[in-house]
Amino acid sequence: MPDITAIEAAAARLSGHALRTPLLGSSFLNEIAGRRVWLKAECLQHTGSFKFRGGWSALSALSPAQRAKGVIAYSSGNHAQGVALAAARHGAPCVIVMPADAPAIKIENTRAYGAEVVLYDRARDNRDAIGARLAETRGLTLIKPFDDHQVIAGQGTCGLEIAAQLAELGISQADVLVPCGGGGLTAGVALALEARAPGLRVRPCEPEGFDDTARSLAAGEVRRNAAATGSLCDAILTPAPGGLTFPVLRRLAGPGLVVSDAEALQAMALALARLKVVLEPGGAVALAAALFRPDEIAGEDVICIGSGGNVETALFQRALA
Amino acid sequence: MPDITAIEAAAARLSGHALRTPLLGSSFLNEIAGRRVWLKAECLQHTGSFKFRGGWSALSALSPAQRAKGVIAYSSGNHAQGVALAAARHGAPCVIVMPADAPAIKIENTRAYGAEVVLYDRARDNRDAIGARLAETRGLTLIKPFDDHQVIAGQGTCGLEIAAQLAELGISQADVLVPCGGGGLTAGVALALEARAPGLRVRPCEPEGFDDTARSLAAGEVRRNAAATGSLCDAILTPAPGGLTFPVLRRLAGPGLVVSDAEALQAMALALARLKVVLEPGGAVALAAALFRPDEIAGEDVICIGSGGNVETALFQRALA
Repeated sequence: MPDITAIEAAAARLSGHALRTPLLGSSFLNEIAGRRVWLKAECLQHTGSFKFRGGWSALSALSPAQRAKGVIAYSSGNHAQGVALAAARHGAPCVIVMPADAPAIKIENTRAYGAEVVLYDRARDNRDAIGARLAETRGLTLIKPFDDHQVIAGQGTCGLEIAAQLAELGISQADVLVPCGGGGLTAGVALALEARAPGLRVRPCEPEGFDDTARSLAAGEVRRNAAATGSLCDAILTPAPGGLTFPVLRRLAGPGLVVSDAEALQAMALALARLKVVLEPGGAVALAAALFRPDEIAGEDVICIGSGGNVETALFQRALA
Repeated sequence: MPDITAIEAAAARLSGHALRTPLLGSSFLNEIAGRRVWLKAECLQHTGSFKFRGGWSALSALSPAQRAKGVIAYSSGNHAQGVALAAARHGAPCVIVMPADAPAIKIENTRAYGAEVVLYDRARDNRDAIGARLAETRGLTLIKPFDDHQVIAGQGTCGLEIAAQLAELGISQADVLVPCGGGGLTAGVALALEARAPGLRVRPCEPEGFDDTARSLAAGEVRRNAAATGSLCDAILTPAPGGLTFPVLRRLAGPGLVVSDAEALQAMALALARLKVVLEPGGAVALAAALFRPDEIAGEDVICIGSGGNVETALFQRALA
């Protein structure tokens, strides 16, 4: 399990490469929430999401020989872009395996960050088999999206920044709301705060119907989602908490908070109007929980991670409507 | 004239109250511009624009007796909101004089920041007479939008941050593009950079038809705009450079850059898609110049201030279309 030493080592490797994202606030949002709301704007991170932290942490932890052979990741989304840019800046070859029906803009962006994109047919092909063959023949290292020590350590650097920024504000007790898919960000932040700001409690946030983490925490053991798709929050629709992440969450995080897609869209619109940042629906669930679940939150302040902002124009229009 | 000592004093007063806004970049924008583009995201500043800096600087420089009587400003836009919030946080009464036909949302926001809004009829009333009467009867201090030493010093704190942030990046030579209305931000930043990063050259940016500063700099004396309205860049349609600001600009800034409204809208759309921040058209003219006037800019890096993000939803939709 990554510990605070691993997270601080990742922070040292990320220094000067990842952005120290700001904590944003607005009196308008405070009024809606009934307490002070702080958004940790990870949508401003390189590639538009926190995933660049984990990607950089993993790439920079490889040996020069491993880096020279290259890396591979399975993702149609933010993890693909984070790994692709981190690999490009390390001069490492990078293969991203994506479904052929992924949105054209995501394929295009991943290629623009310098990755080789290998497409597969979701109905016909076995993604893992394709990836395993590529990894073996080329000697590529697989970078998993959340169940990876160095990835979790990288995401944890966001927690170190939150601890430092809240200390500057004089805030030592608060709930920290984190959009949660497989739990890499949530676990990393929880480990960082355990060591550096133990008065802060991490709360995973998920969309309705995809609240595997909330249910798993309530049950004390892993629960899976019934469906694989069906929410606008595509960035965080992982089927179940990870094998590495769940033990951390069970020890340090919860209870989970659950919001509707409509509430995530409303939070996106308010982030645009009041904080001047773009959030994608999955990146807006923590802000939505802060705004629309005030009775489930404790304290005078609430911190929300705005985990990503990679959203298609059409969805944008819908959030504004 | 405010000097570096006044700007650093303002920075000390602003510390812990204004946001140190991030410098954002994207390889996609670098490709369009043909050099590295850095956006100083002042749209993320409290009240959605750099104007909070000048407002706070002015309020915090008053004597306790002056603050207790209160302040007054004429503005329908970003200056109103910046002064209103700064006054509220200082516990000072604040009157904002606005035309009755200002957009409802701006009147509402200014009131929400705690100001008393006094409306006047543009056709029938004399704004200055109304303001002067209020100021005299209540003992209010007028906070001008740009021709004020403490306001210029406050805006200059943005320049101190740019100097420090570029030093961290190892950049010592570059053009710094600044959206320019009356020139308060441009002059403040120019004074800060003259003292702290003399290899950086300040370039005012304006919309077509409202390029009074560019023409004034070319002529060596003040030139006025022919029209008062007629651009989407409402935040920067001041009729002429200020009496305090122009001598600074003439000594330290230029030549000016001019972009069309359509280019400002395109820059807005690219800021949303690639940097995940909201710019208003007037706040996007410097980014537009960086992207669409590459031949008029020198060096491997260009810094643009994104001066504000207070935009109506309808204009948003138009930028995205």
